Amino acid sequence: MGYRVAIVGATGAVGNEFLRILEQRAFPVEELILLASERSEGKTLEFRGEPIRVQTLRPEAFRGVQFAFFSAGASRSREYAPYAVQAGALVIDNSSAFRMNPEVPLVIPEINPEALGRHQGIIANPNCSTIIMLMALEPLRRLSPIRRIVVSTYQSASGAGQQAMQELLDSTHAFLHGMPYEPKVLTHPYAFNLFSHNSPIGEDGYNEEERKMILETRKIWNDPTIAVSPTCVRVPVLRAHSESILAEVEHRPPLEAIYEAYHQFAGVRVVDERDRNYFPMPIEASGQDEVLVGRIRYDAGSPSGVALFACGDQLRKGAALNAVQIAERLIR
Amino acid sequence: MGYRVAIVGATGAVGNEFLRILEQRAFPVEELILLASERSEGKTLEFRGEPIRVQTLRPEAFRGVQFAFFSAGASRSREYAPYAVQAGALVIDNSSAFRMNPEVPLVIPEINPEALGRHQGIIANPNCSTIIMLMALEPLRRLSPIRRIVVSTYQSASGAGQQAMQELLDSTHAFLHGMPYEPKVLTHPYAFNLFSHNSPIGEDGYNEEERKMILETRKIWNDPTIAVSPTCVRVPVLRAHSESILAEVEHRPPLEAIYEAYHQFAGVRVVDERDRNYFPMPIEASGQDEVLVGRIRYDAGSPSGVALFACGDQLRKGAALNAVQIAERLIR
Repeated sequence: MGYRVAIVGATGAVGNEFLRILEQRAFPVEELILLASERSEGKTLEFRGEPIRVQTLRPEAFRGVQFAFFSAGASRSREYAPYAVQAGALVIDNSSAFRMNPEVPLVIPEINPEALGRHQGIIANPNCSTIIMLMALEPLRRLSPIRRIVVSTYQSASGAGQQAMQELLDSTHAFLHGMPYEPKVLTHPYAFNLFSHNSPIGEDGYNEEERKMILETRKIWNDPTIAVSPTCVRVPVLRAHSESILAEVEHRPPLEAIYEAYHQFAGVRVVDERDRNYFPMPIEASGQDEVLVGRIRYDAGSPSGVALFACGDQLRKGAALNAVQIAERLIR
Repeated sequence: MGYRVAIVGATGAVGNEFLRILEQRAFPVEELILLASERSEGKTLEFRGEPIRVQTLRPEAFRGVQFAFFSAGASRSREYAPYAVQAGALVIDNSSAFRMNPEVPLVIPEINPEALGRHQGIIANPNCSTIIMLMALEPLRRLSPIRRIVVSTYQSASGAGQQAMQELLDSTHAFLHGMPYEPKVLTHPYAFNLFSHNSPIGEDGYNEEERKMILETRKIWNDPTIAVSPTCVRVPVLRAHSESILAEVEHRPPLEAIYEAYHQFAGVRVVDERDRNYFPMPIEASGQDEVLVGRIRYDAGSPSGVALFACGDQLRKGAALNAVQIAERLIR
């Protein structure tokens, strides 16, 4: 027994990760339908050792589908998710299209699984930076309410898609060989450089990625008063995001209790060896399911602050893994 | 008329920058004495088109020297600065050896030039991350006292020296060509990776770089109560440091007044074009004297916060330039 599962955006960086995660977790797939834009028509991708032809995304593609994982951008989701719902599929959407819709649950299964019960055919997967931040804070939050977060991100190329990852590799190669390179995917040179996150900036000076971290945190925690101060930065790393996080809590627990809570929490792995300066690094978070957390310490600047540093695979827990975990919860 | 000037650590990354800056600023050098460890004996470096032989650092090397710029590590400074002072030289020391000594002024000329008057032969140059942060905050501080700083750094390879820069290049080259690479200078793999700053961690969980940012800020601002919450991270960038900074001020000025103050302040250049997502980037700060500041905005998470992003050349304003500016002030 298994499910008819569709992946929309199957040829992208997240789409590819969906294939790997469904395999690795032995998700009960009876039939897998791979959908992408017309450009990818005829391509084949491998799943459980078998080639599967990529089909063009069309309204009628969802016939008989039970789970549809969308990861092809917000406008595709807005256009095609209603067809999937109409066909009886449950949509788990990785885009920003429905995240702030009050009728759509926005879920990290370890944090707010109770929200899943309220869905009307669509469940939204949070933004990758939000997922990694909230996973890294959850053990602390279970000890004391969190009142404020100050976060600076170190985001990888994968968040801007497979082409951005390739641009990082190509432009770095060109730099090392003294060749010119004209950025195609991102606005700014990427080799040995970093820049403010490539999303539009609003009136208040915050970019969209930062706004997502603020608004999604409020929704997931069901706490409209939580103060979030984000700064999102793209760094020349391939596929895991890092975040420097300061959280102010209501009652600061003893450090031992904090460490204990992190060690006990599934979904997080503590990497915090001060004597050999060994802490979370994106290359070690890449390909991993767990969010790595370290540098856990009392804030030097405030009596209620706890500081930490986290790395999480942007394509896995930050995207495809969280979506598959949502489906797993619903099956249970 | 000119001065007899010595550079200790002439063959290092900062030493090399001293040569360039003395040339570019037409510092009144009559004779330049280049000092380094025995390993560099016999090397020559070019200054104003002429080759100068590097001499081995010895106690008697400072005879007749008026300005001695030290940048060869704290233990060299501790050992040899007293000889330079005894010989009548003014020592401007780029190491951490004397920074927290109450008898040694710790100076950023744009910020606390008044401290220069109290020197007893040695003036300390602050740590690069501190200089860049305080330069980026000075225009704001002139509008309102700053009570708290939360800062996350994105530090370049140059802060760990010329060999670390080479390691970043070599390890990235190896990565791109599928070759193995064993880190020699830094503890962790550097290609497309980042890691917590490579300085020892204390009992309180803060590393030395972070502690410098806390203690040096207090000394330079002459404000023992300023709260500083730093997280220092090494990123795969060659030579400019970036910093994500949140400052809480006593009275938050109108944003227009803040922008105006930044535009007027010499030593800072505003790079803040929201419509085309153009903000400070380390590759544009490299080789520049000014600290680039952008993303200036009211903090979304606190009524007294102002957030910004800054990049500064770690070898110039973060090291050699600041030291030469100190000497220039003393000559005036």
